[in-house]
Amino acid sequence: MGTINSDNSTLVPTSEGPLLSLRWEEDRLFLLDQRLLPEHIIFLELKAVSEIWDAIATMKVRGAPAIGISAAYGVVLAGQAYEGDIPAQWIEEIHKAADYLATSRPTAVNLFWALNRMKDRATLLSEQYSDIKMLNLSLMAEAVLIHQEDEEVCRMIGEHALPLFESGMGVLTHCNAGGLATAKYGTALAPFYLAKERGISLKVFADETRPVLQGARLTAFELQQAGVDVTLLTDNMAAVVMAKGWIQAVIVGTDRVAANGDVANKIGTYGVAVLAKAHGIPFYVASPLSTIDLSTASGADIPIEERPESEITEFYGKRTAPVGVKVFNPAFDVTPHEYVTAIITEKGIVREPYLSTLPELFKK
Amino acid sequence: MGTINSDNSTLVPTSEGPLLSLRWEEDRLFLLDQRLLPEHIIFLELKAVSEIWDAIATMKVRGAPAIGISAAYGVVLAGQAYEGDIPAQWIEEIHKAADYLATSRPTAVNLFWALNRMKDRATLLSEQYSDIKMLNLSLMAEAVLIHQEDEEVCRMIGEHALPLFESGMGVLTHCNAGGLATAKYGTALAPFYLAKERGISLKVFADETRPVLQGARLTAFELQQAGVDVTLLTDNMAAVVMAKGWIQAVIVGTDRVAANGDVANKIGTYGVAVLAKAHGIPFYVASPLSTIDLSTASGADIPIEERPESEITEFYGKRTAPVGVKVFNPAFDVTPHEYVTAIITEKGIVREPYLSTLPELFKK
Repeated sequence: MGTINSDNSTLVPTSEGPLLSLRWEEDRLFLLDQRLLPEHIIFLELKAVSEIWDAIATMKVRGAPAIGISAAYGVVLAGQAYEGDIPAQWIEEIHKAADYLATSRPTAVNLFWALNRMKDRATLLSEQYSDIKMLNLSLMAEAVLIHQEDEEVCRMIGEHALPLFESGMGVLTHCNAGGLATAKYGTALAPFYLAKERGISLKVFADETRPVLQGARLTAFELQQAGVDVTLLTDNMAAVVMAKGWIQAVIVGTDRVAANGDVANKIGTYGVAVLAKAHGIPFYVASPLSTIDLSTASGADIPIEERPESEITEFYGKRTAPVGVKVFNPAFDVTPHEYVTAIITEKGIVREPYLSTLPELFKK
Repeated sequence: MGTINSDNSTLVPTSEGPLLSLRWEEDRLFLLDQRLLPEHIIFLELKAVSEIWDAIATMKVRGAPAIGISAAYGVVLAGQAYEGDIPAQWIEEIHKAADYLATSRPTAVNLFWALNRMKDRATLLSEQYSDIKMLNLSLMAEAVLIHQEDEEVCRMIGEHALPLFESGMGVLTHCNAGGLATAKYGTALAPFYLAKERGISLKVFADETRPVLQGARLTAFELQQAGVDVTLLTDNMAAVVMAKGWIQAVIVGTDRVAANGDVANKIGTYGVAVLAKAHGIPFYVASPLSTIDLSTASGADIPIEERPESEITEFYGKRTAPVGVKVFNPAFDVTPHEYVTAIITEKGIVREPYLSTLPELFKK
């Protein structure tokens, strides 16, 4: 594991789209270390399953799609590391690696999904080929496909979202639903990248998103790198920029959409939705179909994780609040569907009544 | 200048009211160093005019009333330092010290007000007494009076506010309008201290108040010290605790109230007011009469200071956002009067129409 690009905080912004957090090259994965952003832009070069495991476990890579893609490439590395010529042993190595990688983030649904897909594919391939080199090439093709599919889903979300925005508009976003969390483009940030590619000039306002500052550290960073016009705000400034008439739309990502259109997303999203409604500003949610869970009836059925108090009472080890003070630190909140102007997916845009429009998407 | 109480983060909460940020003893001012809160509770012992100047200039003391009181005691120290017996020379020392102290924070209105009051009083006294000791004692009495008057104004704001709150209510506040900024009690926090004294049990929720974290560092700290039930939130959680039904009222301080009832206060206040209205929660503003400026027609006439970008892009020297990112950092916002349920002053509570109710207060 090594760095191929040391600290480079003066990296020239490019207009060629988002900085890619993942890049595969034959027998190694280059991974942008997200823990070090925005101070250091360092790519890790990963050649072993154990290095992939470590990168996921220690959150060098984050974002459900990006984790799933990384794990898929981890399985490819396991196959490449097998030095024998017996397909049954090769399959055994694949399964061992997949089961090991599954322990890196025990609650990440995308991780299990990607690993199961890779195991199933390996089994199918072993019934077709006996040449290990051919098996490895074919398995690599599956990982590349997972990678490409995610990019395509994000791109299509961007395509469907783009007509909602006109040149000159101000758009506010919260947290990071961007290229860093996915193969490319992201979900909520996808239309900003496509707009940039097509010369549509949007002014993006990014909430810093306390307590973990994904907006400041990641969203502001990746948009700046791509040459998108972005202004950073503390969360409590969102209301003021709306009142000033600087914001014509809000777009956010989501962790889960319920059947009735209620949206779970990073803490603070609900407040932004209420403020948007009060100022007559549309509130859009960008969501892959894989994030819409029709078996969850409403937001009330979505468990909200409470995170450690230290996220609020400390900052890089420095105390910002008195010892022993009570803290409330939910990681997510639920925005009721009546605040959600539209949900944008890779299959198109839906609006109320979500109870009927969301199921329609899955029939397309 | 020395410390009389070193780091003591386990200081036992007391039910005897707020921790006093200022305490005068004959020939010295004990001042709680607010820059070190909440990690260190350190009182500075100030015996010289230059030490008072330094404490104000370097923001060891903050909050307009607390700054004015400190400066008044600084003038007393100058009189005490005079070793001769000629009243005309004594007066000269007083004026020299007051003019010097006025340079410590050039825009602090309370500072000039207190210094002018002390100069005027010294002049009047020098016409009555020729004994230097008597002059010093009488001048000290004036500083103590300024100190006591501020405490009384805050206490009366608390008295008028208290009937708005019932035992068991949850009350949200933003920034720090507390005892640390005043002689005692504060403005917005005054009812919490009085409630505590009288066994009325309120649950206070304190926004951390980015970017400078006055809510986390000061409000949570001083309420915890006084044994008030306080829970710390990031600013973007205010909406969620309102939606949960945990908040029955919001109360904040103010930097300036315009004639029409528009309220300038710490950035984020406007957003809290909009959220309160959306959730049917009353939004109260605690304000001394001295902060109501009838010569300012509306909030549009209040200049809003923009603060350095580094407040948002750095944290204790550690970068939290990419180099060169655009930042919007207004220190204050304006809450239009239609969001203000009531304004609570030392002379009583007023409601809409503020254009007629506010002037009435000054006639009392």
